[in-house]
Amino acid sequence: MKIDIPKLKQIVGEGNVRDNIADLYVYASDASVHSKLPDVVVRPSSTKEVQEVVRYANKNKIPVVARGAGSGMSGQTVPLSGGIILDMKKMDKIIDIRSQDLLCKVQPGVINDELNRVLKSYGFFFPPTPSSGRICTIGGMIGTNASGNRSVKYGATRDAVLGMKVVLANGDLVTLGSNTKVDSSGYQLARLIVGSEGTLGIVVEATLRISPVPKYRAMGVANFATLRDAGNMISETIASGVTPSMLELMDNVAITAVNNAQNLGLPDVAAIVIFECNGMVKEAVDYEINQIKEISKSNHGTGIKVTDDPDEMVRIYNGRKKLFPSLSKYAEGLYTTALADDMAVPMSKIADTVQKIHEIAKKNNVVMSAYGHCGAGLIHTKILMDTTKKAQWQGAKRAVKEVYEYVQSMGGTTSGEHGIGFSKGQSFKEEKQDSLAMMKAIKKALDPNNILNPNKLMDSPDDWLTATPLRYQVSA
Amino acid sequence: MKIDIPKLKQIVGEGNVRDNIADLYVYASDASVHSKLPDVVVRPSSTKEVQEVVRYANKNKIPVVARGAGSGMSGQTVPLSGGIILDMKKMDKIIDIRSQDLLCKVQPGVINDELNRVLKSYGFFFPPTPSSGRICTIGGMIGTNASGNRSVKYGATRDAVLGMKVVLANGDLVTLGSNTKVDSSGYQLARLIVGSEGTLGIVVEATLRISPVPKYRAMGVANFATLRDAGNMISETIASGVTPSMLELMDNVAITAVNNAQNLGLPDVAAIVIFECNGMVKEAVDYEINQIKEISKSNHGTGIKVTDDPDEMVRIYNGRKKLFPSLSKYAEGLYTTALADDMAVPMSKIADTVQKIHEIAKKNNVVMSAYGHCGAGLIHTKILMDTTKKAQWQGAKRAVKEVYEYVQSMGGTTSGEHGIGFSKGQSFKEEKQDSLAMMKAIKKALDPNNILNPNKLMDSPDDWLTATPLRYQVSA
Repeated sequence: MKIDIPKLKQIVGEGNVRDNIADLYVYASDASVHSKLPDVVVRPSSTKEVQEVVRYANKNKIPVVARGAGSGMSGQTVPLSGGIILDMKKMDKIIDIRSQDLLCKVQPGVINDELNRVLKSYGFFFPPTPSSGRICTIGGMIGTNASGNRSVKYGATRDAVLGMKVVLANGDLVTLGSNTKVDSSGYQLARLIVGSEGTLGIVVEATLRISPVPKYRAMGVANFATLRDAGNMISETIASGVTPSMLELMDNVAITAVNNAQNLGLPDVAAIVIFECNGMVKEAVDYEINQIKEISKSNHGTGIKVTDDPDEMVRIYNGRKKLFPSLSKYAEGLYTTALADDMAVPMSKIADTVQKIHEIAKKNNVVMSAYGHCGAGLIHTKILMDTTKKAQWQGAKRAVKEVYEYVQSMGGTTSGEHGIGFSKGQSFKEEKQDSLAMMKAIKKALDPNNILNPNKLMDSPDDWLTATPLRYQVSA
Repeated sequence: MKIDIPKLKQIVGEGNVRDNIADLYVYASDASVHSKLPDVVVRPSSTKEVQEVVRYANKNKIPVVARGAGSGMSGQTVPLSGGIILDMKKMDKIIDIRSQDLLCKVQPGVINDELNRVLKSYGFFFPPTPSSGRICTIGGMIGTNASGNRSVKYGATRDAVLGMKVVLANGDLVTLGSNTKVDSSGYQLARLIVGSEGTLGIVVEATLRISPVPKYRAMGVANFATLRDAGNMISETIASGVTPSMLELMDNVAITAVNNAQNLGLPDVAAIVIFECNGMVKEAVDYEINQIKEISKSNHGTGIKVTDDPDEMVRIYNGRKKLFPSLSKYAEGLYTTALADDMAVPMSKIADTVQKIHEIAKKNNVVMSAYGHCGAGLIHTKILMDTTKKAQWQGAKRAVKEVYEYVQSMGGTTSGEHGIGFSKGQSFKEEKQDSLAMMKAIKKALDPNNILNPNKLMDSPDDWLTATPLRYQVSA
């Protein structure tokens, strides 16, 4: 690809353009299984610079892939067709905090936990809570419509974005949405941008809805001998009218992995469910946590504990918190891959789905854990396998396909919170087959030269396994 | 316009096509100030029939305006360019209620209160609560992104729609969104359709998120000698961390109108604020209602009452409930017109905005009341005037323009919950000027023949006053 490096340097400054192989290599992969080198990395500092880079790219039909922390699990920021990586991390200002209007305005490079650290001094927080909060950026959260373990109460990023400024493919700057809680002023374009993974425009400012930090918090845990009981406990809790701020499931694979890695001595049961309630009134929090305790009991939960002691709460959540990095310790020689990792199903289908996932894994000779924000219908899985073995990747590919087919047959959806990128392109295209033309029409209308993160979502390659080199050494 | 009436009768049946002048006249206006005859009214009974009618219209470039109850206040269903009115009220089935998954599936002609009547027997409700709930349809609520007096706690229709089936301009049927609480599977197209006022597609089925009915409820009221105090009370309440299920303001014009019409003896103050809290735990509801009581006191509220007695709550809310029909009783010879009727502003700007509205009204020799769901930043106004006088309409036109200019200068938005139609087209186009091209590009991509509710939103005529005949007799 012919890219005018001096021109880019002129726009963003000499030090903010990188095209040596070592730098490009860093930007070739994210937290997905894929790897593909960009042609150049550009780090803009202002909206104006973003506009100029995009205008140049559009004129010359060069792909532009906006990137935050690169913590995406589905290849969103892997530059499938090369081109420019637009690293947005320098645009990291918190522009305004207006607690009396319950909103803040930020640049896209602001890191989630950093925003919450600042908001805390005002008594507020930004509700979406991705596990990657320590590193992930608001821009990335908007791109993927991220949520996390508090989505059961607070919803996802799409529910917390009031408005935004976006640079379109032609370089134009548009202001979408509003500063108000309700807004019926025409097309909800801000909500179209959320979850569009950088394919329709590049967010350069976001107006976010913030919430007052609850004063009280309590947590509980229950163990279940069967997934069916755990699933029933989850759907009954949700339908009972209590609103937990967290309702997390860990299956036996997850429990074993955490025990192996951290020696926490979690019980060897089919599932552990951790629940949390929060609010401004102690009586209400106590009532809710005890309601969930009773529902756990009536669904044969054992070892039930509820507490509002901060240390005890840390201990209860410790296993779940350390789950992701522990997964690779499930068994010698198995590594964690972000595959089929965040499907959502209707609440009543959780037990069936988790059970089916284990069957599918076994059949295809890989290991799959299931855990996640089940109170929001969100099931995380990872595939644990010997990543050096070609046969394991073939098994993983079959397992992924079968899992998604099952999820769709249950009325579920391919991605609950991580987005599609191209790892999940095949299932996504299957699930959305009747609206692919509508997506493509919108994409073409807003990005006629197809420069913004091309070949993702509805334009993904059919086979994720061969779409790029893997970022693993596969020997045989 | 040449429309093949026999062809339409063949599709939907003889009795479901009307083109006599008396029927057309009924469908010429909604709750806005406008009036324009359609060429024909068609009442489909099924998705298939909707598809066939739309396919015929698309082939022959005939406008199609989908209509529910016709309770829209901004001309959404007034057929500006004639053509086919698609009356969706026959498609009124509740298809499925799945309380364990917190969702229901309905056809677009289901009436809001009827849905809630049925859901109540399951212990659930659909949160958006438009004042027109007794007649308005779910399809209309989706079209306008309706909300109502509970939006302060539960959000708007956009927050409560999980998925939908939509007939596009070419007659294709697409399934958008999902059955799950979280959903990061690509473009949030269901959320693009919410608020699009029938210009991008026709909703033929909706999957709605439902909530458990709260067990407890309490209400309070406070009077304020100044709008400033009332406004401060509202924004302090919202920022305090309590979540009222209702936070309503009535200004002095509204109070006077209700007293004149209903003889309720409400106090002659600058503003009355009514607040409600609900939940599953009495202690929490009591705590919240008392918090708001304290905030009212510290902002110089008087006559403060809080109660959980059902009869007393009915009495407190009575004035607000009867407000809209009472407005015409503010003074002899003044009639209520739905103009500039639902702007939203950041919470901290409510007092300033209400004050400014009164100044603008006075200056232009009309009367404007201000009231509404101020806890969500929503201010309702109506213009009260002698609708027979041409000069009054000119004054109203100037007032509307000045109000919107002020709202925009405060960082507010043209419509908070009623939508744009074409009554608010001018302000909308002013407010959204930098994204009009984006809206038009999406519209063109999805409806290249411009048959779906043409000349609304970004394509509105510039002057609402001359866009159609008024549905009032104007003598001089």
